[in-house]
Amino acid sequence: MPQDISLPTTTLNDDIDQGEPQRLAAIDLGSNSFHLLVANYQNERLQVVARMGEKVQLAAGLHEQGTLNEAAMQRALDCLGRFAPFLKDIEAANLRVVGTNALRDADNSQTFIERAEAQLGYPIEIIAGREEARLIYLGAAHALAENGRRLIVDIGGGSTEFIIGEAFEPKALESLRMGCVTFSGRFFPDGELSEKRMRRAELAALSELANIQRPYQRLGWDDPVGSSGTIKAAASVLYAYGDAPQEGVITRSGLKKLRERLLKCKQLDKVELDGLKPDRAKVFPAGIAILCAVFEAFNLTQIRFADGALREGVLYDMAGRNSAEDTRSKTLEMLKRVYDVDTRQAENVADTAARLFAKVKQPWGLTKQQGHYLKWASHVHEIGLAISHSQFHRHGAYLLEHSDLAGFSRPEQRLLAFLVRAHRRKFPLKEWQALPAAQQASSAKLARLLRLAVLINHSRPESAPPLPDISIDGAALTITLPASDEPTLLSTDIEQEQAYMAAAGFTLTVLE
Amino acid sequence: MPQDISLPTTTLNDDIDQGEPQRLAAIDLGSNSFHLLVANYQNERLQVVARMGEKVQLAAGLHEQGTLNEAAMQRALDCLGRFAPFLKDIEAANLRVVGTNALRDADNSQTFIERAEAQLGYPIEIIAGREEARLIYLGAAHALAENGRRLIVDIGGGSTEFIIGEAFEPKALESLRMGCVTFSGRFFPDGELSEKRMRRAELAALSELANIQRPYQRLGWDDPVGSSGTIKAAASVLYAYGDAPQEGVITRSGLKKLRERLLKCKQLDKVELDGLKPDRAKVFPAGIAILCAVFEAFNLTQIRFADGALREGVLYDMAGRNSAEDTRSKTLEMLKRVYDVDTRQAENVADTAARLFAKVKQPWGLTKQQGHYLKWASHVHEIGLAISHSQFHRHGAYLLEHSDLAGFSRPEQRLLAFLVRAHRRKFPLKEWQALPAAQQASSAKLARLLRLAVLINHSRPESAPPLPDISIDGAALTITLPASDEPTLLSTDIEQEQAYMAAAGFTLTVLE
Repeated sequence: MPQDISLPTTTLNDDIDQGEPQRLAAIDLGSNSFHLLVANYQNERLQVVARMGEKVQLAAGLHEQGTLNEAAMQRALDCLGRFAPFLKDIEAANLRVVGTNALRDADNSQTFIERAEAQLGYPIEIIAGREEARLIYLGAAHALAENGRRLIVDIGGGSTEFIIGEAFEPKALESLRMGCVTFSGRFFPDGELSEKRMRRAELAALSELANIQRPYQRLGWDDPVGSSGTIKAAASVLYAYGDAPQEGVITRSGLKKLRERLLKCKQLDKVELDGLKPDRAKVFPAGIAILCAVFEAFNLTQIRFADGALREGVLYDMAGRNSAEDTRSKTLEMLKRVYDVDTRQAENVADTAARLFAKVKQPWGLTKQQGHYLKWASHVHEIGLAISHSQFHRHGAYLLEHSDLAGFSRPEQRLLAFLVRAHRRKFPLKEWQALPAAQQASSAKLARLLRLAVLINHSRPESAPPLPDISIDGAALTITLPASDEPTLLSTDIEQEQAYMAAAGFTLTVLE
Repeated sequence: MPQDISLPTTTLNDDIDQGEPQRLAAIDLGSNSFHLLVANYQNERLQVVARMGEKVQLAAGLHEQGTLNEAAMQRALDCLGRFAPFLKDIEAANLRVVGTNALRDADNSQTFIERAEAQLGYPIEIIAGREEARLIYLGAAHALAENGRRLIVDIGGGSTEFIIGEAFEPKALESLRMGCVTFSGRFFPDGELSEKRMRRAELAALSELANIQRPYQRLGWDDPVGSSGTIKAAASVLYAYGDAPQEGVITRSGLKKLRERLLKCKQLDKVELDGLKPDRAKVFPAGIAILCAVFEAFNLTQIRFADGALREGVLYDMAGRNSAEDTRSKTLEMLKRVYDVDTRQAENVADTAARLFAKVKQPWGLTKQQGHYLKWASHVHEIGLAISHSQFHRHGAYLLEHSDLAGFSRPEQRLLAFLVRAHRRKFPLKEWQALPAAQQASSAKLARLLRLAVLINHSRPESAPPLPDISIDGAALTITLPASDEPTLLSTDIEQEQAYMAAAGFTLTVLE
């Protein structure tokens, strides 16, 4: 049954603006809960149209079996069925469906994703832990009025995110693999709730926290803030028992009392506390163990609950993509600096690629978005040189696939990695076939354009040279080179490229 | 038949020093020639005892088939049979046998290496292109008296190295996949020698050179120097025909005349020139095509031949390993800076690892050299964090395996990569079994020590904590933890480690 429905209720911002509002929607496929958020975006503000949340506990049983179990998948699909009607009028470009820890970890997440995409009719993106942290911060930062440096803690079902930031700028982003659903299965498998088990769960959390404790303390913060259900529920219980100085604040002593109250319940299924919704009870002790460990590791005296989380962040991020402030472009600029890319060459290749793209966009049925991928891949195609010249296209692909790239979803990273992997030497058929079927045709086209752009700029000129004459016939390309008595660098390269393309089943014809 | 035997002839340095000299030997398994160099090392100087070289043309046929052919392997093994008597009195630690491009590229190089190791009784290391370039520079730098910035070009059978450096410090190192043997097979497959084919070979070389042309020209140089057989032979032919201003110098106009002389031969097997040894004739035109491309790309007016190449570099490098100036330590320091490693944590882990190593060295039969690997792995075990926290042990391993690490051979890099890959989470059985059989027992031991050192320092303390009580029984370890009423971070970690070890078939017992 759907819970927390509110249609329309809370408004992130009440201002009414002139101009046509844009309808945006986000679905957060969390390890504990799924959330839907629909809002109108206008003049840089969001007005919530619908909110919906269900505790589907997708990660239940994940720790034990390594897979999502059938019952959990069915609960999840049923929930998406209830979300679907709210998405009717939303353009595909204005909806993002993001999956987090449970879908990152489960061996069978692809199976679930395919069923869920069929159910929803929209693609699902799995996002990396640090990207999740970035989006959470973006959501929280919009909800917080105060200035100063904040530590944000978001205890989820399968992962917990820690962010230090100021205003809209995160300074540190981490996602640790611990959450109230997975820890519940791991430390309270038979439902028994004892001091010893509680301490084991806390120590496991401290063990994860040891990795970030010192750098975070070095950065420091003025204001610790908690988002997400565990912290909201803890604050609500403390307030109900009069153990909080004010609503929404969790103090160290209050948390200690809450921990004792929980231990007295002795069994997960006997956890009943004032202010606690019954559907959270079973995963609440594990969430509190994590929160206790956070207090211990960071030596907190209190934390306050604040609204605004992943789904809000996704909406603000989506809104930002239509502005000049595209996080993804900034991320790639950072990557180019870190790996010391030859900027002039990157720009020349991007310039040539853009001109090639303009020529083929219409006949090849490519989208503006695909043009962005080509541009981005052009800018970072040489990052692998920082590792080694030998096989640098492979190294670049590795970095793009595995780095935490703010603003990019995993499938986007994989596509960029593929384009960079494919930009020189043999066309990588195996990697190409590993792409989602729906992406293969367009990604091969983008890769072929990038390869040509790289060849045309092979001599690393001052500025991108004029395009050779190119004509398109279906998927085949024909290049006409200026007549010359003897082979040139370009003609030698193109001849080699023709052989590479033929080996991969693509047609590149060269005329003189 | 062995050629170029000189026993003992040239002396890199004639000074006779007091003290016990060390006998060092290097074998360079090049794509065109194999070379043996034996020398006495004393007071930082080498005195050559024996030199031997044979043009085995290991890479013949490699371009066409992708494999070393049986005839080439047999020539190579016969040659090693002739080298073997010179190695009788050399300690294993004082000999390095290095393989370059042909062995890097051939699909069946493992087969050859096993046969060659059986023949020689010593291990063979395949070195990366940039490591080859570094060693060539080290050899050449010792042979050059002049100061100033140099460009060194070494045209080999399968690769050509380009180094810019001053004194003993290389500023740029590259290895391009083009050499006189592979280009001969690729551009003159049926032996016909025409202007068109020559130009195609030059353009292919220019195409490779385009990658380094601009950065090298930006660095600049005072003095272009060529080492290796192709350049030596070119200088000798020019001198024989009176086309050189002095012995050992190749001018642009001289090179042009040489190119014309070659084209007049019309067939590879009809190449006969004054000053050219018959056994070089077949691969000489391809070598000259590469040299012409080098003149064109770098706009050279002349280049002079200088002795001193890979094998000399290997000897100087080996000599340096016994001094404080170990290139490998310097390389890892650089890596730690580039990937922004938490130095205190690295040092604490290295410190704990060293104490663990001291405890088990004797009962586990480990060597001092293996202790170095453990130390090095401790220092760089966190470099993967620069890519992403998630799976950072895998990212660190990728960087260690694929980066050009000055001073390390490929097998050494692979071992370091394995130790870092294995330092946390599940013990990677598949990667472990992929190590050479002879390394498996010791590398598992080193990995187990590194894992413990990381756990003991898990809370990232100011300084490495005291070791828990550890006892050894065969391959099994027993740790006795201080008695405690409730679990601690260390006891929780060690309990998890016990499970990981058990899953991999190793025994770790925990007592209280």
